Amino acid sequence: MDIIEGKNPVLELLKGERKVLKIFLSKGLSRCKTLAAIEELAKKKRVPIEVISKERFEGIAKTKAHQGVVAQAESYRYLNFDDFLKKIKDKKDAIVVALDEVTDPQNLGSIIRSSEVFGIDGLIITRKRSAPVTPATYKASAGAVEHLGIIQVGSLSGAIKALKEAGFWIFAVDGKGEKTYHEADFSGRICLILGGEGKGVGRLLYENSDFSVRIPMFGKTSSLNVAVAAAIVMCEARLKNQIQGGEAR
Amino acid sequence: MDIIEGKNPVLELLKGERKVLKIFLSKGLSRCKTLAAIEELAKKKRVPIEVISKERFEGIAKTKAHQGVVAQAESYRYLNFDDFLKKIKDKKDAIVVALDEVTDPQNLGSIIRSSEVFGIDGLIITRKRSAPVTPATYKASAGAVEHLGIIQVGSLSGAIKALKEAGFWIFAVDGKGEKTYHEADFSGRICLILGGEGKGVGRLLYENSDFSVRIPMFGKTSSLNVAVAAAIVMCEARLKNQIQGGEAR
Repeated sequence: MDIIEGKNPVLELLKGERKVLKIFLSKGLSRCKTLAAIEELAKKKRVPIEVISKERFEGIAKTKAHQGVVAQAESYRYLNFDDFLKKIKDKKDAIVVALDEVTDPQNLGSIIRSSEVFGIDGLIITRKRSAPVTPATYKASAGAVEHLGIIQVGSLSGAIKALKEAGFWIFAVDGKGEKTYHEADFSGRICLILGGEGKGVGRLLYENSDFSVRIPMFGKTSSLNVAVAAAIVMCEARLKNQIQGGEAR
Repeated sequence: MDIIEGKNPVLELLKGERKVLKIFLSKGLSRCKTLAAIEELAKKKRVPIEVISKERFEGIAKTKAHQGVVAQAESYRYLNFDDFLKKIKDKKDAIVVALDEVTDPQNLGSIIRSSEVFGIDGLIITRKRSAPVTPATYKASAGAVEHLGIIQVGSLSGAIKALKEAGFWIFAVDGKGEKTYHEADFSGRICLILGGEGKGVGRLLYENSDFSVRIPMFGKTSSLNVAVAAAIVMCEARLKNQIQGGEAR
């Protein structure tokens, strides 16, 4: 079971497909639009709401970012990789993002949020050496976890191989990339690989990519935050994929 | 006095102009490249290094992200707004970023890091209702605080007025912007205003802007993280400013 905390995260949770077991509100909580929307949606989905004392509430909430609202929900279920490939098999234009050892839950949450905003088709993370989807990730994603297909795989190189076989072009996004991301052709089915903070994309994955792209940098700081780098390239890829691919999704 | 914690932040601190008073290393710290670079630079700048017991070290460090290295430095000094305008008075092409009530220190740190990477000329924040530059911001910026001019003003609308008089075009970056950021003309002297999480750019600032631009969004999540939005527009502005302005900085 997951504990989801905060008004917006709970609202996004209710909008998604995950089973919500119960919602707790802290006594004396002041009214607002988001709270009203939570109550309305909970009623529609038959999720019980209980108003409890501040003391009991603090015992249930796990962080200080709860804003007086927490929900108990089924544990997060990742999308199965094969099911995902089947689901998108007829899409001529598709964008998949694959994360190679992104270990910070804040960064993962931010990448999930941006991926959802830019209509990315799926996000691949690894079972080991990667931040999993936890309530902290959930919070950092502003609830976008509920609206994005997140796939957890054992081996990223295995997944990349399968994507290649499914007609995907593989782009390593890395500071040492050959072209700038502006120059890349992001049409068709593409996968963007991003590496963890300070390390970049792993050597083998990098070598097995079809293309490598970098974000131009002008200052003294040696790298961008991985969530920021991911968003910049995703946004560009999404816009170009749409224009160059010519197919409305 | 500020306490700066962590290997990379301390290294970046030493590369900057701020006076560093002392560096403490936790006893038994394992050797690495970054540590060697810290020691070399500290020696060059005559900053004393003291190796202390783990117990004493834990008493000085304020967070758990210290990696066995902390530095005591002079408190952060903001750039004076008038001095900043004088400094850039001959630049035909310049980019200033102004933050309207960005209150999260992590977001501020991330924006500072991206601003430095994209060679932004100056970052304006307000004295009230804004996260100030603290050690937490410093850490989130990966030390980029030391290499970027950060200006703290009493009133953002006053600063925007002065920028207009200095020949800047003002762009409000907001979800309800008229054009997408791809369509904007970012040549010459420009200022990008970004609003705090969930609120966007304040009404008066928005109305007094010369242009408003938005980032296209495709998903169900209603907004991007402000640090992510800032980076996307800054990166584009920097690339276009360079090309359209035609002047190498």
